[in-house]
Amino acid sequence: MTRILGIDPGLLHTGWAVIDSQGATRHYVASGVILPSAKLPMAARLATIFRGVDELCATYSPDACSIEIIFVNQNPKTTLALGQARAAAIVAVANRDIDVFEYEPNKIKKALTSAGHADKDAITKMVRLLLPMAAPKSPDEADAIAIALAHSNMMRFTL
Amino acid sequence: MTRILGIDPGLLHTGWAVIDSQGATRHYVASGVILPSAKLPMAARLATIFRGVDELCATYSPDACSIEIIFVNQNPKTTLALGQARAAAIVAVANRDIDVFEYEPNKIKKALTSAGHADKDAITKMVRLLLPMAAPKSPDEADAIAIALAHSNMMRFTL
Repeated sequence: MTRILGIDPGLLHTGWAVIDSQGATRHYVASGVILPSAKLPMAARLATIFRGVDELCATYSPDACSIEIIFVNQNPKTTLALGQARAAAIVAVANRDIDVFEYEPNKIKKALTSAGHADKDAITKMVRLLLPMAAPKSPDEADAIAIALAHSNMMRFTL
Repeated sequence: MTRILGIDPGLLHTGWAVIDSQGATRHYVASGVILPSAKLPMAARLATIFRGVDELCATYSPDACSIEIIFVNQNPKTTLALGQARAAAIVAVANRDIDVFEYEPNKIKKALTSAGHADKDAITKMVRLLLPMAAPKSPDEADAIAIALAHSNMMRFTL
């Protein structure tokens, strides 16, 4: 069995999900959102993400962490902010010697829906179908579950 | 007295410097470079920076950390990589509840040389003049000393 921590990083909302994966079977363990206050300075927000993910690693002892690769988009300032949030999460995981697997967004979508450009609704539907227990309360949480599920699929077919 | 940790982050070379500042007097304490192996995957390199800075905080107990603000430059991919290295360093400091002060690169140069667009040579000369004991062995180390010195100047004139 492999316990996977999926992370959808963001400076305001960092979604996370823990699932257990064994062969074709997956079990939902937990999911949620880390919410650094927008009132805090950047450094304190990054520390909130770090501490949150560090605590998740201590609580759930994942074997692997799955996270999206960021691409430079139309707004380089947003990309930079997202990159910093992502680094805060990755550091918490890597500092505990947990392997980090990075996937391109369209590969995550494809691993779940067989379509590289599936929209948010298609992802949420697939998450509900595969893990009915999950019931994500926000898009960030649903994305984190999708990212964790994608790694469980990748493991089956590529490892 | 204020002990300042200056950091010049980078995925391959993260320069650091510790100085003590009291009024117009500054004392060089230590400086060096954290060198994450280029052979390591990104997550492990970020963890090397985090652990290095965390250890510096434990060893030198700085009161404040000074670091450059990154601007999106011609190469957004480089900006993203630099942003992630920077976040790994900031998280280590903020996680220990040490205040992080972020300065624009031209303000750091101006605080040291009275010119916003001073070149590397002018910075290194000023570092040698202000802190003869420092003797930086690399540009990253010299930049980190400059960043720490800039904060000591900013404190005098703006706090």
